[in-house]
Amino acid sequence: MLFSLPLSKIPTHWYNILPDLPQPIAPALHPGTRQPAGPQDFATLFPMNIIEQEVSSEKRIAIPEEVRQIYALWRPTPLRRAVRLEQALGTPAHIYYKYEGVSPAGSHKPNSAVAQAYYNKQAGVKRLATETGAGQWGSSLALACSMFGLECVVYMVKVSFHQKPYRRSLMHTWGATVHASPTKHTHYGRKMIEAHPDSPGSLGIAISEAIEDTVTHPGTKYALGSVLNHVCMHQTVIGQEAIDQMELAGEEPDVVIGCAGGGSNFAGIAFPFIERNWHRNKKHRLLAVEPASCPSLTKGEFRYDFGDTAEMTPLMKMYTMGHDFVPPGIHAGGLRYHGMSPIISQLHHLRLIEARSYPQAPVFDAAIQFAKTEAIIPAPESAHAICAAIDEALDAKAKKEKRVILFNLSGHGFMDMSAYDSHLAHKIEPI
Amino acid sequence: MLFSLPLSKIPTHWYNILPDLPQPIAPALHPGTRQPAGPQDFATLFPMNIIEQEVSSEKRIAIPEEVRQIYALWRPTPLRRAVRLEQALGTPAHIYYKYEGVSPAGSHKPNSAVAQAYYNKQAGVKRLATETGAGQWGSSLALACSMFGLECVVYMVKVSFHQKPYRRSLMHTWGATVHASPTKHTHYGRKMIEAHPDSPGSLGIAISEAIEDTVTHPGTKYALGSVLNHVCMHQTVIGQEAIDQMELAGEEPDVVIGCAGGGSNFAGIAFPFIERNWHRNKKHRLLAVEPASCPSLTKGEFRYDFGDTAEMTPLMKMYTMGHDFVPPGIHAGGLRYHGMSPIISQLHHLRLIEARSYPQAPVFDAAIQFAKTEAIIPAPESAHAICAAIDEALDAKAKKEKRVILFNLSGHGFMDMSAYDSHLAHKIEPI
Repeated sequence: MLFSLPLSKIPTHWYNILPDLPQPIAPALHPGTRQPAGPQDFATLFPMNIIEQEVSSEKRIAIPEEVRQIYALWRPTPLRRAVRLEQALGTPAHIYYKYEGVSPAGSHKPNSAVAQAYYNKQAGVKRLATETGAGQWGSSLALACSMFGLECVVYMVKVSFHQKPYRRSLMHTWGATVHASPTKHTHYGRKMIEAHPDSPGSLGIAISEAIEDTVTHPGTKYALGSVLNHVCMHQTVIGQEAIDQMELAGEEPDVVIGCAGGGSNFAGIAFPFIERNWHRNKKHRLLAVEPASCPSLTKGEFRYDFGDTAEMTPLMKMYTMGHDFVPPGIHAGGLRYHGMSPIISQLHHLRLIEARSYPQAPVFDAAIQFAKTEAIIPAPESAHAICAAIDEALDAKAKKEKRVILFNLSGHGFMDMSAYDSHLAHKIEPI
Repeated sequence: MLFSLPLSKIPTHWYNILPDLPQPIAPALHPGTRQPAGPQDFATLFPMNIIEQEVSSEKRIAIPEEVRQIYALWRPTPLRRAVRLEQALGTPAHIYYKYEGVSPAGSHKPNSAVAQAYYNKQAGVKRLATETGAGQWGSSLALACSMFGLECVVYMVKVSFHQKPYRRSLMHTWGATVHASPTKHTHYGRKMIEAHPDSPGSLGIAISEAIEDTVTHPGTKYALGSVLNHVCMHQTVIGQEAIDQMELAGEEPDVVIGCAGGGSNFAGIAFPFIERNWHRNKKHRLLAVEPASCPSLTKGEFRYDFGDTAEMTPLMKMYTMGHDFVPPGIHAGGLRYHGMSPIISQLHHLRLIEARSYPQAPVFDAAIQFAKTEAIIPAPESAHAICAAIDEALDAKAKKEKRVILFNLSGHGFMDMSAYDSHLAHKIEPI
């Protein structure tokens, strides 16, 4: 069952959760002085209009018309009820999913990439540098830059560069330059290659390279695909649309589920529902799902840490596995980040959201059950949310209660079929 | 600009063009006797309910509710106006596209696969055999079989089996068995391997193998993804929705464009508009677009020919390159068929539709221009329609006239990124 919205229902504002937080997040610290970082400390990386957004105390920030016009190439995204999955589970629960895989890059990431490209263009920036793991973010930024006529350079984690050639090709098709990180283009990359000539790279290393590229190239700024407030905020179009669509469906979700790597996808679906909990006295449960092999929320420490490996970023207070933690090479590459959005970390610290982790095997089993009932082959990242949704539905069945479950299907799996091959051949790591 | 329809606007009937044809198509001939083939001659391959549909004289055939429910997993598909592409071309033309790439298999093919699986299930069939080239049809049938609990075996052209591993993985994920054709499982396959041990296979060979599999396995029937009337008919949901959506847009297309391999995609968008030409005195031009390297409509002969290489199928009167023609290995694998739907052939013979062919290079240039303006990376097959739409828009610009162009964007290119790599590296064959 589909609940679709007209173009006019693409949200006109992003929701900024910052001023609504019952306790503010701890300030970011300058990596050198360890003193609270001010806007100027971010100015080498981001243009001022984005920095203002990052720290804004406005609850609603108007989405520029040019951005909404590009959103309109794929938004509003569909929300569907997974009736066939419910039947297969024999559950009294109702399962709804918001499907972000219809975007041209195949995930929710363009929601922020387009906004970031727009603001950089406005600020006179000519070139954006970024990193990417599995390629979801890099391809989204490549797409966004092609829309606004910006140069785009992507440092792609080397192992993914070779294992995920199709996402690399997406970036090329949209006109971006893609380097396998560690590269010889940066001081930090050369240092890494000298120390570990066969390094497969990591997201932390790629971030360090993209930042070094930014500070050494005039006219260049840096773009981050998750973690920061402005990125989470751009994703709130997902939850806002979902609220309208659940209204069309005539139901209120008891639990809202999203997978969480850096956190932007979870933030996107969850924050607008959290606002309803606060301001409209609703009681939505919010559930962030992460891989057992990179369990920052469920097993990490809540403390200050760097966002990258080279200790170049400001320190942020967040749930973290430690910035030198190298997660195993699971297929859900988008969830392999040592830290977590400071806002989501704070919400979890305040027990306002729940978190859960799953190993790979049940996640892929859930993905295949979804593919065989609802037809869509999900991204391995998104399959974490499916796995939790199925568990919630089975729990409702065991307790013979009705439960309304909503999850964010953040992307499709067309680019991840080799992961399905491994799973079907029983060649997947059990973690 | 999006023109979306509610679920209730998924068509309730397929449009059968057969009784509307000004001159009936020539009868199929039995491959042995060369006499007109009757329904019983098809009975080894297809269940009787599908054969009845193939030769029906009813203009409207009700879509079973179970099929509509599965269509509802992705239909109605969106229709959008390509405003950014129009701006890039500086054309006064309005360009609309119907986007079938939102289906779970990424193309229009499930529209028929789901219907065929349903009818076979109704008829008590346990197992479906088919062939696939690039994998669009095979993955769609695998999906459809998983929805109805049917076994599915796919003979996939060997060169694609190795070059397009992701589409093979889709089929595995939906539970199908996939063989690289020619195989050693059939007499014809073994004969081919003996004669040409390194044979890359062809669609004609794979069809022959799937047919042999069907006639030698009890409980098995055969499913074809294009060419035949019932397949074209199932695709008419595309054009029917597009008519409703163009009405929402407040415009009538002057020209309706689709790429054509076996013809089902072109039929899907075009037949409902052809009916309007006949019954409502409209003047839509219909344009079928094919690759220059496999130009059945533009350079083939209109005569009886086999549908396969092994001369096992009935003969059909159609535009054909000859059933032993092996098209060059272009990237638009779905258009590499020697023949053409007999109905489309007849329409072309009667000058009721137009046809045009393009070599690969301009097709990929058009694809990239589309990706950089409208964001979607199209399948190489669908890019043929884009190429023609752009030419129509530029022609309108040269003539300073308004023209309303509608094309069918039959699939996305996520599975075809290696083709984009070749094009960007200037390693694409010029044909």
